[in-house]
Amino acid sequence: MKLPQMIYKPRFAVTRASHVVIRVRDLQTSRAFYVDLLGFIVSDERRDVIWLRGLEEGCHHSLVLKLGDPACERFGMRVLTEEDLEFAKAHFSAAGFPTEWVEVEHQGRTFHTVDPAGTHLEFCATMETRPRLFHHVEAYRGAEVQRFDHAQILTPHVADCLAFYTGMGFRLSEYVVAPDSEEPVFVFLQRKGNPHDIVFAKADGPRIHHFAYTVPETVQLMTAADLLVRAGLAGQVEFGPARHFSPGLARFLYLRDPDGHRIELFPSHYQTIDIEDEPIRWQAPDFLIGGWQTPPERWFSEATTFA
Amino acid sequence: MKLPQMIYKPRFAVTRASHVVIRVRDLQTSRAFYVDLLGFIVSDERRDVIWLRGLEEGCHHSLVLKLGDPACERFGMRVLTEEDLEFAKAHFSAAGFPTEWVEVEHQGRTFHTVDPAGTHLEFCATMETRPRLFHHVEAYRGAEVQRFDHAQILTPHVADCLAFYTGMGFRLSEYVVAPDSEEPVFVFLQRKGNPHDIVFAKADGPRIHHFAYTVPETVQLMTAADLLVRAGLAGQVEFGPARHFSPGLARFLYLRDPDGHRIELFPSHYQTIDIEDEPIRWQAPDFLIGGWQTPPERWFSEATTFA
Amino acid sequence: MKLPQMIYKPRFAVTRASHVVIRVRDLQTSRAFYVDLLGFIVSDERRDVIWLRGLEEGCHHSLVLKLGDPACERFGMRVLTEEDLEFAKAHFSAAGFPTEWVEVEHQGRTFHTVDPAGTHLEFCATMETRPRLFHHVEAYRGAEVQRFDHAQILTPHVADCLAFYTGMGFRLSEYVVAPDSEEPVFVFLQRKGNPHDIVFAKADGPRIHHFAYTVPETVQLMTAADLLVRAGLAGQVEFGPARHFSPGLARFLYLRDPDGHRIELFPSHYQTIDIEDEPIRWQAPDFLIGGWQTPPERWFSEATTFA
Amino acid sequence: MKLPQMIYKPRFAVTRASHVVIRVRDLQTSRAFYVDLLGFIVSDERRDVIWLRGLEEGCHHSLVLKLGDPACERFGMRVLTEEDLEFAKAHFSAAGFPTEWVEVEHQGRTFHTVDPAGTHLEFCATMETRPRLFHHVEAYRGAEVQRFDHAQILTPHVADCLAFYTGMGFRLSEYVVAPDSEEPVFVFLQRKGNPHDIVFAKADGPRIHHFAYTVPETVQLMTAADLLVRAGLAGQVEFGPARHFSPGLARFLYLRDPDGHRIELFPSHYQTIDIEDEPIRWQAPDFLIGGWQTPPERWFSEATTFA
Repeated sequence: MKLPQMIYKPRFAVTRASHVVIRVRDLQTSRAFYVDLLGFIVSDERRDVIWLRGLEEGCHHSLVLKLGDPACERFGMRVLTEEDLEFAKAHFSAAGFPTEWVEVEHQGRTFHTVDPAGTHLEFCATMETRPRLFHHVEAYRGAEVQRFDHAQILTPHVADCLAFYTGMGFRLSEYVVAPDSEEPVFVFLQRKGNPHDIVFAKADGPRIHHFAYTVPETVQLMTAADLLVRAGLAGQVEFGPARHFSPGLARFLYLRDPDGHRIELFPSHYQTIDIEDEPIRWQAPDFLIGGWQTPPERWFSEATTFA
Repeated sequence: MKLPQMIYKPRFAVTRASHVVIRVRDLQTSRAFYVDLLGFIVSDERRDVIWLRGLEEGCHHSLVLKLGDPACERFGMRVLTEEDLEFAKAHFSAAGFPTEWVEVEHQGRTFHTVDPAGTHLEFCATMETRPRLFHHVEAYRGAEVQRFDHAQILTPHVADCLAFYTGMGFRLSEYVVAPDSEEPVFVFLQRKGNPHDIVFAKADGPRIHHFAYTVPETVQLMTAADLLVRAGLAGQVEFGPARHFSPGLARFLYLRDPDGHRIELFPSHYQTIDIEDEPIRWQAPDFLIGGWQTPPERWFSEATTFA
Repeated sequence: MKLPQMIYKPRFAVTRASHVVIRVRDLQTSRAFYVDLLGFIVSDERRDVIWLRGLEEGCHHSLVLKLGDPACERFGMRVLTEEDLEFAKAHFSAAGFPTEWVEVEHQGRTFHTVDPAGTHLEFCATMETRPRLFHHVEAYRGAEVQRFDHAQILTPHVADCLAFYTGMGFRLSEYVVAPDSEEPVFVFLQRKGNPHDIVFAKADGPRIHHFAYTVPETVQLMTAADLLVRAGLAGQVEFGPARHFSPGLARFLYLRDPDGHRIELFPSHYQTIDIEDEPIRWQAPDFLIGGWQTPPERWFSEATTFA
Repeated sequence: MKLPQMIYKPRFAVTRASHVVIRVRDLQTSRAFYVDLLGFIVSDERRDVIWLRGLEEGCHHSLVLKLGDPACERFGMRVLTEEDLEFAKAHFSAAGFPTEWVEVEHQGRTFHTVDPAGTHLEFCATMETRPRLFHHVEAYRGAEVQRFDHAQILTPHVADCLAFYTGMGFRLSEYVVAPDSEEPVFVFLQRKGNPHDIVFAKADGPRIHHFAYTVPETVQLMTAADLLVRAGLAGQVEFGPARHFSPGLARFLYLRDPDGHRIELFPSHYQTIDIEDEPIRWQAPDFLIGGWQTPPERWFSEATTFA
């Protein structure tokens, strides 16, 4: 596979994956799952929406639960400055994607758009802040989720997404090519210096396969699974704890929330910042998604559609 | 199910599950598995046998590997004193089981016998000692196995074994009865004050399903699995890491060694000493062997026969 | 030092250190410390007393808080059967110590007595039971204390205590002799198969230096200290986290409760059951109480007197 | 204290703290410390120099040990591209600091310079690469150090350094002002999105107080200390394990290497990328450097001078 040229000095600075907005059928059921079992902090809530953040996060929200038919409403990314936001909007428009300024509670100026996969995106430069609870050990509960890290999008158009995102300055950290060709079927793209902000995998789409949060240590992967079993939700522990030997390299646990949305928990990952860091190449099927564990069929086939 | 009467003051004191002797096809392959990957300490070795102990153990061996066709040669138990050993031997003889004094290297006086399951047993009161390496952190390697804890025997004669072992002063900590009757199909029997020294489960037998060692913390369950994958042995990580919600309650990992012998690793368990501790009752199929994980079929069907 | 002869088959079976009864000035302050910060479970409570147990314990209580001037009221031990209780009482009487049957809530028949140190002891065979919460991960909070393990008594009469307790069937696991003589100044005595149920150290007494509970893993030692700092109680984290390289071998954290009572937390210890396990000998000052950390002076000088 | 204006779009991109070059009296002694006890990986070595990296690092070296009188030779930083390197060099020159192109083995083009503290700096854009061992669990040893994170410099000129580094696009994440004025005495400056690449603290200087590496989990802080004690180096465990409640927020352990160079280990930290993240302000003495532990006097007074 011929890798696209990385753009190290993009015209505008996307900084990181920021948040996910999902629709859920029952807010109290979802609150019990995310807050009581996984340890999310409630930044704000009202009758039809709950704004959540991880223990280490100073931003107002990284996960927004809205009352509605289960779907993903938006995957949010951050740019650094308001000027970057203007440039970003212009970039999407110039590429032929519709963009629109929208009002979003608790966020600064925000625009909506889509990417070549059809991912429902929103970008903003700022958000209200809340206290980081990183060292507030008394606030740690359940799986003790720390911060939002990345999301994975399913799409038939992986190569297009790779080209589009690297064109915005995303860097490719790992990728998988098809068994019999050089077609990319899995690409990890990053801006914040670890392996991923957004991942694209080949499948029907656009759908969001999972969004991922960090937990403090390996033991919380087991604790999260234990907690779901104890809550009568054993069936929602989908895959793991195990390790992604390739691609990804990290330990993980995949859970399904009460509406079937998939969340990944993982304890740590590697730093990748330097210009000489070459993307790690894997070729299917010679890779081990779960190391010693085989993903269940539904981990491949099921995902959340966009609203 | 009518539980047998516990005998709190048996005529002789069996103290604990002590060791397992298994036959393996290639000692160096087994050594790589047990020593390099799992972290066992070699107490002694020669061309046709390796004596191993866990990091915390002061006894000469808890696992003996002998060159030969794969099989379990003996499951060893300890009694407290030489006098207890005499009484124990007499007890087995009186029950109609053959007993025989044997010479066993590095052990004190030892006799061989069998139980109602046909388990090949040996009993001794003493063994040579070696330094405990509990706080010798520089000797910790791989999965950092700490000490032998128990073994599980498969037999069609679970009720007979329950009666026989409780008759020797073993206490029942947990048990499972059949879905549609009060027949015991799974019994945990203990002498040392945690839930198990020997476990009997209903299946063709006598076979040894697994022997179990403790590891320091939960993370070592993941590390053990990682190590096997890295060593090209992903297929030998059979079940877990997960938790036995019922029966057992502990976190676990089951591995298959190079000859197919099964070893369980677990990080901690509960203490059960008091006379008022009632055996915990479970009824199949309303129990969760792996919590959120289903054991693979071979975990049920495969086991090691006795030599 | 000439070690006393161990008695492996004592006339009666003391089984384990069972519980501690302490007096505290303010029950709600103590409750906040033990329940909210350390994670104890409340088995029962009323205006003037709170009965607590660890997450893994099936007994009704292992720590009893009573309203009163700070002091230790009793250190409780268990015997196996009611018959053992009679023998134990007779044994203390025969040795010249006063014994008295007393009514103790939630316990079976109980007698009070003292030992050569003047330790206020109570013995019982049974206690009410409560559900073990070992695998009820949703009940884990704070430092997640699991079970009571041992207590340490200060006394000028260490050698007398050693003789008396070994005379009841306690086994010596580790000991320290004085720098310039063979006088024992620190003795670890055990019945339950790990290094200690009761420890005697040379100092003015009788006083209880600390009582000790297990926590699941090493990280909880750090979490416990973090929690105290966050609660404004940094000054009550007295010593650690560190490791007792000699004697003891385990990782530890010592805390002072709101009334100055000292509690030790530790994650794991070694098993010692076999008759050939020789007591480990240390000679002051060539030992490392805190490994890389020096205990503060108050850790040596301060302790709780008996009521 | 009036904070300097952050420059979010600096002319050139410094990306991260990269490496430290120190001189040591005996390479084999230092190798035993860093490789055998702390788990560093040797990328290359010869008679008079050893190049080390952490388990997760893909760069050739993050710590270079050179034979010589103990001193710090260089603190290395990375810029993103060769063009950034030119701009960086010009920036230092324009500010009146001497700059010089130098040949450095295993690194791309490199220049030397100093900052207002007198820190001996070197900058490069690229370095040779080596395999990341992040998921090579079989290569994990000792304290399992993962990656270089930051260094702390002692200087009387903290305010000058704050102005100079923010002028290059570093962002201030946390700072401490003097007890009685608004003078900054402690500033955390970062480029890579966590709290620090370089920290300046007020004291005689220029000296390097410590350089810091990540470890996988909290337990490795205890294991590192254990390992030093077992190696007879208890005196080199200087401070911790404990937590920096303010400033810093992370758990830590400070060790002194065989030449007295100080290394900090810490398991995790928080992410800080967004423009709205305000620097966290602390005022001495109302902060808790070690939470429940007081740093020893030498932690304040001793440090490594530059060569």
